[in-house]
Amino acid sequence: MTSEAEFRPAARAPRGFDDRRAEAIRAERRILEAVSGVYESYGFEALETGAFEYADALGKFLPDADRPNEGVFALQDDDGQWMALRYDLTAPLARFVAEKWETLPKPFRRYAFGPVWRDEKPGPGRFRQFVQCDADTVGSGRPEADAEIIAMALEGYAAAGLAPADFSVRISSRKLINGLLAAAGVDDPAQKLAVLRSVDKLDRLGMGGVTALLGRGRKDESGDFTRGAQLPVEAIDAVTGFLECGAETRAETLGRLAGVIGGSVEGDEGLEELSRIGAALTSLGVDDARAVFAPSVVRGLEYYTGAVYEAELSTGRGTPGAFGSIGGGGRYDDLVARFTGERTPAAGFSFGVSRLAAAMAAAGAAEQSPMRGPVVIIAFEPGRMADYFALAAELRAAGVAAEVYLGASGMRAQMKYADRRSSPAAVILGDQEIEAGTVTIKDLDAGRALAGGVRDNQAWREDRPGQVTAPRAEWVAVVRRIVEAARL
Amino acid sequence: MTSEAEFRPAARAPRGFDDRRAEAIRAERRILEAVSGVYESYGFEALETGAFEYADALGKFLPDADRPNEGVFALQDDDGQWMALRYDLTAPLARFVAEKWETLPKPFRRYAFGPVWRDEKPGPGRFRQFVQCDADTVGSGRPEADAEIIAMALEGYAAAGLAPADFSVRISSRKLINGLLAAAGVDDPAQKLAVLRSVDKLDRLGMGGVTALLGRGRKDESGDFTRGAQLPVEAIDAVTGFLECGAETRAETLGRLAGVIGGSVEGDEGLEELSRIGAALTSLGVDDARAVFAPSVVRGLEYYTGAVYEAELSTGRGTPGAFGSIGGGGRYDDLVARFTGERTPAAGFSFGVSRLAAAMAAAGAAEQSPMRGPVVIIAFEPGRMADYFALAAELRAAGVAAEVYLGASGMRAQMKYADRRSSPAAVILGDQEIEAGTVTIKDLDAGRALAGGVRDNQAWREDRPGQVTAPRAEWVAVVRRIVEAARL
Repeated sequence: MTSEAEFRPAARAPRGFDDRRAEAIRAERRILEAVSGVYESYGFEALETGAFEYADALGKFLPDADRPNEGVFALQDDDGQWMALRYDLTAPLARFVAEKWETLPKPFRRYAFGPVWRDEKPGPGRFRQFVQCDADTVGSGRPEADAEIIAMALEGYAAAGLAPADFSVRISSRKLINGLLAAAGVDDPAQKLAVLRSVDKLDRLGMGGVTALLGRGRKDESGDFTRGAQLPVEAIDAVTGFLECGAETRAETLGRLAGVIGGSVEGDEGLEELSRIGAALTSLGVDDARAVFAPSVVRGLEYYTGAVYEAELSTGRGTPGAFGSIGGGGRYDDLVARFTGERTPAAGFSFGVSRLAAAMAAAGAAEQSPMRGPVVIIAFEPGRMADYFALAAELRAAGVAAEVYLGASGMRAQMKYADRRSSPAAVILGDQEIEAGTVTIKDLDAGRALAGGVRDNQAWREDRPGQVTAPRAEWVAVVRRIVEAARL
Repeated sequence: MTSEAEFRPAARAPRGFDDRRAEAIRAERRILEAVSGVYESYGFEALETGAFEYADALGKFLPDADRPNEGVFALQDDDGQWMALRYDLTAPLARFVAEKWETLPKPFRRYAFGPVWRDEKPGPGRFRQFVQCDADTVGSGRPEADAEIIAMALEGYAAAGLAPADFSVRISSRKLINGLLAAAGVDDPAQKLAVLRSVDKLDRLGMGGVTALLGRGRKDESGDFTRGAQLPVEAIDAVTGFLECGAETRAETLGRLAGVIGGSVEGDEGLEELSRIGAALTSLGVDDARAVFAPSVVRGLEYYTGAVYEAELSTGRGTPGAFGSIGGGGRYDDLVARFTGERTPAAGFSFGVSRLAAAMAAAGAAEQSPMRGPVVIIAFEPGRMADYFALAAELRAAGVAAEVYLGASGMRAQMKYADRRSSPAAVILGDQEIEAGTVTIKDLDAGRALAGGVRDNQAWREDRPGQVTAPRAEWVAVVRRIVEAARL
């Protein structure tokens, strides 16, 4: 106890973990509620798994060479087993499904949201804990399952508040590029991976940069040389030709792709699947502008086995992808098999909730009325606390958030407190009021406006005087009017 | 990659971490929404801190001798600092408040909910991750702040769905017992702690057991001897007399306590504070049955410095506490001072959400309509998927959750799937229907009822036939009627 009293730790949150206040929490809750509602309307059920998974079951051990530096927070349990905090919601789903498969309705559709953790170097806007929201269908190999997830994601973004014109999903399939490389005689897994990584850089480096990376390699501005995929010239031409297949409509893109891809089993499968995804999207009412076939989409994660999709915010300046991805997903048919040995087709979509909130703010979609604090009952005399509490209870019973000031400061500090809480009104019950059977109500927005320079605007003052003294029978109604006006 | 393909981890959640399905999640969300609404109506704002705190800032290092075995999950950050997952929501609040004090409105009122983690031995119903929901007022030493939190907690339980008669809060103050011991000449901290621990066992051991523990000690049924607090006889008498002060009304209990306590500064303070808490509770409309002064309440946590409160489910059999605590809190004036060196009065209340859900189930308060799955569109022919999707979209547009079956199985398996999802209806669009411009709808509840033995009830069958074939213009309305009937 003595050493405890002497030791004084610094009050600081760990690096990369932020404290979130009411306004940010409200924005996140609105997004999650809206998106959950859409997911449930598509028949997806909620699932929550714990924060930890055994490390061997977690994605850390998935072959994910594109994110070699993304560590997990791991510790050893008292029985010697290593556990790690989940770094996404897909790995825990694969574990859950493998564990409970026999008892689940099949296909199994679930959505989930919650924090994930990554032991990465934190930076501005880059946190080591953030919220993801996922939906997955496990046990269906039908391309229509992909289409449904894409349509649902689009509806989710709209429900969250994005204007439909502001975002779109770009779609491709790993099978196309695999088929293309097979036809060109490229079948070394490492080389195929290098091709995927090069293609993934199209937005950033342009076709010239990608062409260099497909071949010998590329020197960047700093002079650093990145070794390329070492493809022969014909294979490079095949890949760049493939990347140029994007057209205005899904049908047109498919037609061009058919001309470039055909001839390999996997390529033909990819084409057939994209074609069925396109048909299902059309029957779900998703038009060509909102879901686009885009050959350059590959997604970073290696575990995808078929269709891949990437949601992007359009800036309206014709540069899709300028803001970056706001979510994505794809088909991964091998994750459950890691546990069971049995191939289990699955497809899912994930979005980072804070990234979406930021995207919404960037798109001007998140404009909400500012948060308002409670009505504050000013406290003058300790002996009158019971009366103040009764006033607060009366307001709450009328559906108005209210509190009695519980600090030790005087009138001025209390008004400042109400101001900092963005309270719409403060309520005063002094000797005068008690004697007269009244309550005095300060309209704080009116007060702010008056202080802000409309002091001499007679009409405004008559319309909303800064202060009203009302009889006990009417004061709640007066407060409600002020609170409702403050919401506008 | 090769070793990856060969290694097959067992699919299992780590010990003490459970997977939660839709029904449990729904119950928890309802509780959290209801309680958050109440907290916000009292002017408490939402706050979220990260899962980790630096270990030195965390409650692990609070003097909490009553929970010596409650470990935390800790790991070392790459800069050598130890971080630990929060084990409650109070320690992170104290850190946050100490860090941000200058920028906060004062008093600062916040509520928070989220998972907390304890590295304890898991057991049946005993998890290493669970959800807490807290409300705290920091920066007010007024007893009215305690009263408000108690009233709010009571309102929160009611909003969550407990019947007001089913629960109550028992209230006492550490200052009473401290004053009592000071008057009896007991001022050794270890001895005082031993007294608190003994009193805490009153519900379990009865007055005889507590009396033994206050003195030399007690041998339990197994023969194990617990060393007592070694109080002199007069002090034991004082404590047991104190414990017997509980009466029907708060005023009566206060009167009795005044007769037993008086004479020490701290005891008088405690009496004065309880008296003001009682007055404020009365003005908040909280009657004597719902908030009871109960001298035996001490609460386990050592950091409490004044009033302590414990919410309990009454079983209706006159044995409060038989179900155990469903929440509690108290005044802790020293937690923020650990960081700042400045005493900052604070009071808060916490409840375990899953414990509350269990308590509600035990009290029969959680009876909700069972969850219903989506309407399932039966899928016969891959070539007709577009039509099926269009049907599902039509239903969703009408506000009905719907999905197309996306597995590979036949009609029977699909009906079984709909049954496992608790779907109210299944929809069939076959050759016949397409030709006739109709849709066939199976009322699955009716089907279940018919299968369950009301097969011969002619009236019931006419009222809700198991199957209806409706024209395309009317089928959505038919489905809606069935879905609405299923909700009842």
